[in-house]
Amino acid sequence: MALLASGALPQNPPHTLPSLQRWLAHMSSFSPSETKDFPPHSLSCKMAEELSQLVHKSIKMTPESLKPDKPSQGSKGGEHSKGKSGKFTLKTPKGTRDYGPTEMAVRRQVFDIIYSVFHMHGAVEIETPVFELKEVLTGKYGEDSKLIYDLEDQGGEILSMRYDLTVPFARYVAMNKITNIKRYHVARVYRRDNPAMTRGRYREFYQCDFDIAGQYDAMIPDAECVQLVHQVLSKLNLGDFTIKINHRKILDGVFGSCGVPAEKFRPICSAVDKLDKSPWEEVRKEMVEEKGLNESVADLIGDYVKFSGREELIDRLKSDERLENSADAQAGLNDLSLLFQYCKSLGCDDHVVFDMGLARGLDYYTGVIYEAVLMAGQNRGEEGSVGSVAGGGRYDGLVGMFDPKKKTVPCVGVSFGIERLFTIQEQKQRAENQKLRSTQTEVFVAAACKGMVHERLKLIQLLHEAGIKAESSYKNNPKLLNQLQYAEDSQIPLVVLIGESEVEAGVVKIREVTTREEATVKREELVATLKQRLAPK
Amino acid sequence: MALLASGALPQNPPHTLPSLQRWLAHMSSFSPSETKDFPPHSLSCKMAEELSQLVHKSIKMTPESLKPDKPSQGSKGGEHSKGKSGKFTLKTPKGTRDYGPTEMAVRRQVFDIIYSVFHMHGAVEIETPVFELKEVLTGKYGEDSKLIYDLEDQGGEILSMRYDLTVPFARYVAMNKITNIKRYHVARVYRRDNPAMTRGRYREFYQCDFDIAGQYDAMIPDAECVQLVHQVLSKLNLGDFTIKINHRKILDGVFGSCGVPAEKFRPICSAVDKLDKSPWEEVRKEMVEEKGLNESVADLIGDYVKFSGREELIDRLKSDERLENSADAQAGLNDLSLLFQYCKSLGCDDHVVFDMGLARGLDYYTGVIYEAVLMAGQNRGEEGSVGSVAGGGRYDGLVGMFDPKKKTVPCVGVSFGIERLFTIQEQKQRAENQKLRSTQTEVFVAAACKGMVHERLKLIQLLHEAGIKAESSYKNNPKLLNQLQYAEDSQIPLVVLIGESEVEAGVVKIREVTTREEATVKREELVATLKQRLAPK
Repeated sequence: MALLASGALPQNPPHTLPSLQRWLAHMSSFSPSETKDFPPHSLSCKMAEELSQLVHKSIKMTPESLKPDKPSQGSKGGEHSKGKSGKFTLKTPKGTRDYGPTEMAVRRQVFDIIYSVFHMHGAVEIETPVFELKEVLTGKYGEDSKLIYDLEDQGGEILSMRYDLTVPFARYVAMNKITNIKRYHVARVYRRDNPAMTRGRYREFYQCDFDIAGQYDAMIPDAECVQLVHQVLSKLNLGDFTIKINHRKILDGVFGSCGVPAEKFRPICSAVDKLDKSPWEEVRKEMVEEKGLNESVADLIGDYVKFSGREELIDRLKSDERLENSADAQAGLNDLSLLFQYCKSLGCDDHVVFDMGLARGLDYYTGVIYEAVLMAGQNRGEEGSVGSVAGGGRYDGLVGMFDPKKKTVPCVGVSFGIERLFTIQEQKQRAENQKLRSTQTEVFVAAACKGMVHERLKLIQLLHEAGIKAESSYKNNPKLLNQLQYAEDSQIPLVVLIGESEVEAGVVKIREVTTREEATVKREELVATLKQRLAPK
Repeated sequence: MALLASGALPQNPPHTLPSLQRWLAHMSSFSPSETKDFPPHSLSCKMAEELSQLVHKSIKMTPESLKPDKPSQGSKGGEHSKGKSGKFTLKTPKGTRDYGPTEMAVRRQVFDIIYSVFHMHGAVEIETPVFELKEVLTGKYGEDSKLIYDLEDQGGEILSMRYDLTVPFARYVAMNKITNIKRYHVARVYRRDNPAMTRGRYREFYQCDFDIAGQYDAMIPDAECVQLVHQVLSKLNLGDFTIKINHRKILDGVFGSCGVPAEKFRPICSAVDKLDKSPWEEVRKEMVEEKGLNESVADLIGDYVKFSGREELIDRLKSDERLENSADAQAGLNDLSLLFQYCKSLGCDDHVVFDMGLARGLDYYTGVIYEAVLMAGQNRGEEGSVGSVAGGGRYDGLVGMFDPKKKTVPCVGVSFGIERLFTIQEQKQRAENQKLRSTQTEVFVAAACKGMVHERLKLIQLLHEAGIKAESSYKNNPKLLNQLQYAEDSQIPLVVLIGESEVEAGVVKIREVTTREEATVKREELVATLKQRLAPK
């Protein structure tokens, strides 16, 4: 049934008015020039009156729900002050937002593509609670732990909101003593970070995670993760992308060979992680001044982290004089060689780059790490890379942190940052002037005269019974033009129209909304005719 | 790619072994009686050795991920004590649980049906944050407010977890100044209630809400909600159900006519709400002893709340000597008359019962209220009703509570309690011995001999490129029987099998997993052949 504002008349878009007049005139067998004063028409009720009102009246209608979604972004949108309301500020919590119908339609598109790729790989789905015992999250995120949302102690357990889906997954695997699983999990996570919502950075945001847990042969699951990222980004069709890869053992090998003491590997790794946002000079400064690294050691590292390439770089580093004797570096380089080979067989090596400046923030990675960045879209007026849209890597020790016997399960996985993808998809559709529907309605049941409400409801029942998505107005006697306008605005392809004469004759009129062609069919042929017209061509 | 345990051999179900032997023998052109000692076979590698191992060896394999999901229900499942672990209890928070692959597959089925009905009615989707400013929830839930989860004050806003989806919806409508919308929202809500998880009662649980906001003609949106409940429960096919309806104005009219003072309407209504769990004597006691009602007034109410019927009851009450002069009661009764008429036209009146004992807990209802209960399924060994699976009603004042000018938007809606539906669906499938797949994989790519990993990956790439859901093993040289067993256990319909001779000849073998029939096809015809076999018949 319809969302027509009470007694309102169509306003937007006004350019449809002449065509509606033409159609009405046609139905009434009058030419457009005669529309000002109507004699009774073929449908036995007062369309003429309505149209006359429409032509002479100041017309206003745009149901709120049909307007583009208003941004309701935290403290920015829709707010009114405490003073005015006398009560409280009407807003969503800082760093969060509502998603309206159009935004949800875009998101569903992105989700459907990601789900289809997850299913392509035979992944199962799991779901974990939105909060965990606080101690489950403790000691997993390093410095970032300060960003965790805690729940109030209301008597009982001490809980925190999940910070990612990886730690709950590891908890799930350990708790259920699972030795192997390939699962996906799409859900929101929570970080008390400084939000930058215009850039798609929120405190509450979706992660779409795909992980493979189990003791398998080297690099086969890791290559599958690269392939999956390649497939998702190709199918989303958001322009060129690069999948950067590196290996924690190579980084550790470089650090060791350059003279970094072992206890400083992770802090120095954190510094390298900032290379995607800061120039080397700043990163070097952090290494030397904050983390107490010898200047010459920092400079040696600086030479390595600038490297980026493919197999030739791997080969060169294998015989690099400093790395030649590092077991860690050699193990990591061998892994990457193998990874490139598998990616070739999987047809996903073309966007892959070995980038020694890639470090990833989280402490729990132990092997291959990767990150996908979208290159700027010219149609989006951006320059360079628009930032990371997926990231992940191998974390062989995390499950063991939850096992009393420290028995671990090797894991590798990837996480898509859906908010960025979704912002970019929205920009793309805006640029291409696509108007996305937020409903799936196929048929609007309209009445051309009063007293038809039960007849309309019976038709709705008939269509629903046949699996046809159908709506009608919630008014007893809705104005015909409002009904047609609603169908047009909502991009509903077909209108089924009845008047007294149609009911008497046991027929209905079917109207194609875009072409405005109509045909009269017998009621008993209605369902079959509609199904035929709605079938994909 | 596959979830095969490292180097393990198939154990469960052992009854498949003879058939595997037959098939292997067939491929090797030997009769079953000759399977003990194998000469080289048509695939140029060592299947014989494997099968011989299999026959003579104590065999063990059931990957954890293939076992039925273990219950991991809060403090019950998977727990190990602090003492043992030396660290902490491995569990989910009280009243919450993980959902494993099989459970998620059942849930997806239930969700898909509910979503399809929501789309049938042309509803748009919205999403709101999981928490709200605490003051948004304050004063909306009466006594139940004590069950709200609060977040810790970490500096900044004071937040609470959402308690339902209705109050956030009203906040959304008011904040965005929406005058009409028909939306659905499927999400989890949070209540610090006493969990009873075996009966599907959790602290974190899904609600599937459908609501219509806007100023419309009486009872048309209300009837659509009844129709929607009827459609969802019919499509879920979980047995007989009843949709109880009542009207807050009828209850108020009864209370007023019987002599309840106006300020006691809501507390007395709360007492009536307990009638579905407690006998009248206890409810009467609460009215008299806790809520200070005169005994004779309580007895008068007792006469009314026992009534249940259909139109004849409505008509009788319209001329009831006590209710005749109650404007409230008459208005409510007229609404219900109209509702029954619309439900008839919508073909959904057959399960509807006017039940004067239905009161609904929440304070915000102002008009029609309804609740759907499933009747006991004989195959589930239950008696009577198995409880409420959906509920809702009209709440015309809630949006106004968020508007500074108190401008309100009338609303009516319904919420499905998915945890119960999902528990019942699981019981039904167990009773019918249905085995639900938790993956969608269509083809398993297997190798009959060593050194085939790159060939397998190339095939995976070829199939994925063609949109065929395909997996292979993560081992370099997986044992053939493990691969076939995995495909069978996972209910993957087809296996694509290669050996050295196939690769040389540019062909592959396609095996139907259930019938074990196979055929050799040219590699360039593989995709077309698979698509043909996978097409729905």
